[in-house]
Amino acid sequence: MDLNSDLGEGFGAWSMGDDAALLDIVTSANIACGFHAGDPSIMRRTCELAVAHSVRIGAHISYRDLAGFGRRAMAVTPDDLTAESLYQIGALDAFARAAGDRVRYVKPHGALYHSAAADREVADAVVAALVSFGGASLLGPADSELARSAAAAEIPFHAEGFADRAYTPQARLVPRGQPGAVLGAEAALAQAVSIAVDGRASTVDGAQVGVQVRSLCVHGDSPDAVRMARSIRQALVDKGVRLRSFA
Amino acid sequence: MDLNSDLGEGFGAWSMGDDAALLDIVTSANIACGFHAGDPSIMRRTCELAVAHSVRIGAHISYRDLAGFGRRAMAVTPDDLTAESLYQIGALDAFARAAGDRVRYVKPHGALYHSAAADREVADAVVAALVSFGGASLLGPADSELARSAAAAEIPFHAEGFADRAYTPQARLVPRGQPGAVLGAEAALAQAVSIAVDGRASTVDGAQVGVQVRSLCVHGDSPDAVRMARSIRQALVDKGVRLRSFA
Amino acid sequence: MDLNSDLGEGFGAWSMGDDAALLDIVTSANIACGFHAGDPSIMRRTCELAVAHSVRIGAHISYRDLAGFGRRAMAVTPDDLTAESLYQIGALDAFARAAGDRVRYVKPHGALYHSAAADREVADAVVAALVSFGGASLLGPADSELARSAAAAEIPFHAEGFADRAYTPQARLVPRGQPGAVLGAEAALAQAVSIAVDGRASTVDGAQVGVQVRSLCVHGDSPDAVRMARSIRQALVDKGVRLRSFA
Amino acid sequence: MDLNSDLGEGFGAWSMGDDAALLDIVTSANIACGFHAGDPSIMRRTCELAVAHSVRIGAHISYRDLAGFGRRAMAVTPDDLTAESLYQIGALDAFARAAGDRVRYVKPHGALYHSAAADREVADAVVAALVSFGGASLLGPADSELARSAAAAEIPFHAEGFADRAYTPQARLVPRGQPGAVLGAEAALAQAVSIAVDGRASTVDGAQVGVQVRSLCVHGDSPDAVRMARSIRQALVDKGVRLRSFA
Repeated sequence: MDLNSDLGEGFGAWSMGDDAALLDIVTSANIACGFHAGDPSIMRRTCELAVAHSVRIGAHISYRDLAGFGRRAMAVTPDDLTAESLYQIGALDAFARAAGDRVRYVKPHGALYHSAAADREVADAVVAALVSFGGASLLGPADSELARSAAAAEIPFHAEGFADRAYTPQARLVPRGQPGAVLGAEAALAQAVSIAVDGRASTVDGAQVGVQVRSLCVHGDSPDAVRMARSIRQALVDKGVRLRSFA
Repeated sequence: MDLNSDLGEGFGAWSMGDDAALLDIVTSANIACGFHAGDPSIMRRTCELAVAHSVRIGAHISYRDLAGFGRRAMAVTPDDLTAESLYQIGALDAFARAAGDRVRYVKPHGALYHSAAADREVADAVVAALVSFGGASLLGPADSELARSAAAAEIPFHAEGFADRAYTPQARLVPRGQPGAVLGAEAALAQAVSIAVDGRASTVDGAQVGVQVRSLCVHGDSPDAVRMARSIRQALVDKGVRLRSFA
Repeated sequence: MDLNSDLGEGFGAWSMGDDAALLDIVTSANIACGFHAGDPSIMRRTCELAVAHSVRIGAHISYRDLAGFGRRAMAVTPDDLTAESLYQIGALDAFARAAGDRVRYVKPHGALYHSAAADREVADAVVAALVSFGGASLLGPADSELARSAAAAEIPFHAEGFADRAYTPQARLVPRGQPGAVLGAEAALAQAVSIAVDGRASTVDGAQVGVQVRSLCVHGDSPDAVRMARSIRQALVDKGVRLRSFA
Repeated sequence: MDLNSDLGEGFGAWSMGDDAALLDIVTSANIACGFHAGDPSIMRRTCELAVAHSVRIGAHISYRDLAGFGRRAMAVTPDDLTAESLYQIGALDAFARAAGDRVRYVKPHGALYHSAAADREVADAVVAALVSFGGASLLGPADSELARSAAAAEIPFHAEGFADRAYTPQARLVPRGQPGAVLGAEAALAQAVSIAVDGRASTVDGAQVGVQVRSLCVHGDSPDAVRMARSIRQALVDKGVRLRSFA
């Protein structure tokens, strides 16, 4: 099992998240590429730290929206989106290579993650950038347009799951805002183990559903989130789960 | 002899210069990388056109200043400047590779060109990015801090000259604004031939001085400039000068 | 009748449109405020020119999207959109006042124009900025959510029409891309006169429909567009239509 | 005596400083205007909070440099700098007015503060924006080009001092980096009282020098800084100093 998290999400004088703590926890780092967060100096430093911690480097690509942290859907044409994606991947790859590795995977961020999961045209635009770049895999939600687009283009795709989110009987995430969508600390810990060991998650109606994922996404944007991520890692290690990146 | 010019200097809905005309004239294209001009879609298209015309791709790196077109000096720290340079080179390289080539050289743009020519610390910051990137040469003014920094780092350096600028007896450019600094069309044409064939340019006081350059910089930002660039190319061809990129 | 057009749509080193020509044609200037185009120096100069030509100053507000020229819909929250709108209006007002006038109206640009016309929540967010600003009217499409939102907030609203676009029998614009949506030069000229003199436009099926508008929108983004705008002005003057701004 | 501090220095998803704490301490708020920090929603909220706390609103104007937080000197032409300054002042004024007040003063930020203090041409460019705007005063360092430019333009100027910085015998700040330039907590507290009550500060060589200022600048970018600011306020109140804004 892989643990992935968002890193390098500061910009200029602003910082966000506890990258130092996360690098001891995760096996894959989704590194911001300057479009929703991350400036060149932060990207360089984050790549160097990732390599020093043997954490795999992924390009966390986004719509061009620093002011909205990439969380706002934008009606970008497919051609522009492919070019914007490739721009970000290429920029990060230069830092990854300078640090001794390379961009091994791509994960869309924020609004682009949701658009690409639900809309095949958006997914295809992102995947076209991976085809142009070559040699990187794609990380995203299972059973999504991203997954289908990657399969069609013969780009390796890896599904990720969430410890702290309830699943529907169809193995989809219960949308945020619905009752029971977000799990408490204890339930999340149990779900992480359940997904990693048994490939099963609790559904919101109390049943269980198969969830086959290669990675679990953990967060570092608050001290509580970091504690949770650390607990998840420890629980998986205690259960004998081998942690290593898919990439 | 090589002819280089700035290309891909539009941004979004705005265009600048006659790239189509220049691609039939030059052998090396200094392509904007998004910091003073150039967006991802323009970069992709410009790289594809450059490859189609067998024109070499160079990264025209700049201070981060779209509003000032990179023409305003900025007090960027060396570490930040190295990272900003590498970011731009890496982004363009992704498009160059997608088009079937790679970034073969780097040329600083505007205020960065002047700062890096005159200030060794700035030059070293730019050259550090080339060292990290690997495999690209540097294009800039002869007898400059850029040239010296490149030599110290063992990065191949190529000097460029200007057809339409008068030289001092020390083979430096007469600063713009001084009388006689900019040559008329006829004198510029003669100087292009003189530099390319004899390695000599007219000085502002009527003498001649040796000017050893591997490239001549031509402009495309007005119909007159394009006509002049075309005339220079034709004149060199007529004199039997072989035109090919240094990169 | 008023003639309005987009002005001040350059940015930094880039220019767009023939502002000098338009200022002799229109009575109201939709001036870009820095979010899709327009930088502070361009805004200042455009306001000065508008005042010198007795052309009314309107704030052409946009989503924050220089790279997309404000043409891409963005999922901005209403609160953020109100704040972004007020920011732009306030900035332009400082230049308008420095030039001896003030921002007299607001017109949404591009994707924001279309979103605010069709979506009441977006319209309300824009109108909330006008309420906060005070003293400016709103220019937009007739029979739209923008019109209804302005009415509800008791903000003066002025409808605009288009000489070169065919209307449906319901007095709406035929969507671009449908056959007959865009009129040729001669038909557009006739329609401008028809709207201004008789308050009627041709429908796409050959009938006529009442179109009550206070302003006609003309374009200046090509020499042909400027010629058309000039012809429309002349035709209206010849028919005895008095041209003056609504604002 | 006035206490001023920088507020509203977040951007999008990023926050900086403890604005809530500072609003209980200071009498004047230097509010970022979007060029080094501050987005429209933050500006609106900060203006509302300032008015609610009876804190005066000042425009904290900057070079256009979000990536560098306005700390990097830029070679902006005087005309552009005047326009960029007026743009920021006007934008903030719209929020100040919506909150029931107006921009009462202007303080340059970061690199612009230092450039305008030392370079009369830069100072004049900033002051020209205040002349265009009208009705706002200027806050800056005593005995500076800013002070002289304001006097020449008949713009009210208010000098600020620093509790935690040692002064030279000429009543200038000892440059950061020199020994003794920054005072410890106890010495800073004593100096705040000394400046406010006696108009005198300690010099770096142990003597005293007259320091006539209308405002003291305090910081809020760390918990320690907020504690120090609160201590300074309390110490001044204990000494019977009346705290109110100059603006």
